[in-house]
Amino acid sequence: MKKLTLVKIGGKVINEEDQLNEFLKAFTKLEGLKLLVHGGGNIASTWMSKLGIEPKMVEGRRITDAATLDVVTMVFSGINKKIVAKLQSNGVQSLGMSGADLNILHSAKRICSDVDFGYVGDIQNVNIDLLKQLIDSNVIPVVCALTHDNQGQLLNTNADTIASELARALSQSYAVDLVYCFEQPGVLSDFENKVVIPEINEQSFLEYKNQGVISEGMIPKLTNAFDAIQKGVTQVKICHFEDLKNVDNEQYHGTVLC
Amino acid sequence: MKKLTLVKIGGKVINEEDQLNEFLKAFTKLEGLKLLVHGGGNIASTWMSKLGIEPKMVEGRRITDAATLDVVTMVFSGINKKIVAKLQSNGVQSLGMSGADLNILHSAKRICSDVDFGYVGDIQNVNIDLLKQLIDSNVIPVVCALTHDNQGQLLNTNADTIASELARALSQSYAVDLVYCFEQPGVLSDFENKVVIPEINEQSFLEYKNQGVISEGMIPKLTNAFDAIQKGVTQVKICHFEDLKNVDNEQYHGTVLC
Repeated sequence: MKKLTLVKIGGKVINEEDQLNEFLKAFTKLEGLKLLVHGGGNIASTWMSKLGIEPKMVEGRRITDAATLDVVTMVFSGINKKIVAKLQSNGVQSLGMSGADLNILHSAKRICSDVDFGYVGDIQNVNIDLLKQLIDSNVIPVVCALTHDNQGQLLNTNADTIASELARALSQSYAVDLVYCFEQPGVLSDFENKVVIPEINEQSFLEYKNQGVISEGMIPKLTNAFDAIQKGVTQVKICHFEDLKNVDNEQYHGTVLC
Repeated sequence: MKKLTLVKIGGKVINEEDQLNEFLKAFTKLEGLKLLVHGGGNIASTWMSKLGIEPKMVEGRRITDAATLDVVTMVFSGINKKIVAKLQSNGVQSLGMSGADLNILHSAKRICSDVDFGYVGDIQNVNIDLLKQLIDSNVIPVVCALTHDNQGQLLNTNADTIASELARALSQSYAVDLVYCFEQPGVLSDFENKVVIPEINEQSFLEYKNQGVISEGMIPKLTNAFDAIQKGVTQVKICHFEDLKNVDNEQYHGTVLC
């Protein structure tokens, strides 16, 4: 099996043009087959506030109503095209996609009895036949955080989940390394002093979680990631976006999941 | 050579959800290989006015400054994803693209001595190798009106021109029929009474133009189209979007360029 590196880039890096350019430079240098997944950071919120659309939250969770979905669709796919143009200028033969393109990510609108999240999708199927054909032609897919329900509706979907679902599906055909890049140096045991946990397994994850060492936002990321490993992904790393250049060498100082 | 139908859909149809759905139904029924090109209609202007961005015009021509390009990028690529989701729900295996994706449309920022049009691109190269591979796998590309300069900059580009340039390039490998669909029944000799010119050639075009029969917006469309025919496109038709279903039969009542 050929190796494929699947990289998810975090929202805060996308917010800052300089950081995004630095990250894309490191991504460009990665050797072999690769794929990039990105969300939209806070850019959607910025545009919503410019448009006077109030963010709707229920129990601390964002609701994607029709007006929000409109903005999210434009912002995510606009960022997607900007990233592709930047990668092309680096000589990377990239192709921007949502989950509707080539029907790669078919989702269902989330049904909850307590909260209506609106236009939020949970992935049902990952269709990789045509995606594989592109990857094998050395095309670098760049996937944004939109899926579709196959009935004409786009749905807002968590980019971390998209990354792990794509990684799982592609691990049938490739030795997939999944790398979550963001603005922190790794999974931290001490947030203030930026102390990185170099290795973490399911057992130690449970312990850190019970001790309250690992923070809220990191929990679904790690849960997704361990699930991906169980389902065939070769390895998962979580690191600073500038550390991506070291992901296959000794200088790497982020977290490795094992 | 296999036949390929390349359809450009006009902005006013995109503005109206019902009309867009009708058009996409007709597009879905088209047999054989096909490709769709679209602009953004007035949706970009609507969002600009919501955002309080003043449209900048010089001598009646729109200027794409940085703020305008930001909105145009989001709106065009957002519409692109919506069209793809709708086509997928019709069972059409579609893939949305800008000119940066797979580097299909490489352009140069327009340099004029009199007017600075801003981020507007004139197409320099059409790269169809990977596009052909997709088309031959029965993928239906959906191309929006953005190109790139290969230095990381997206550029706003006229959708009619994109359609004719793609048609020309693809005519090296396919028998390309180019169809411009819009809200009028064809090229009109009498706008008020909707009298369609059934056939038009370069000679009669010149005469209509000199007589002032053919209106301003139609002139660049027809100039582009005749140029495409000279460079290998099999035929060009200009018709109402609902007439697309008749484009290959006797019931067609739009204009044929010959």
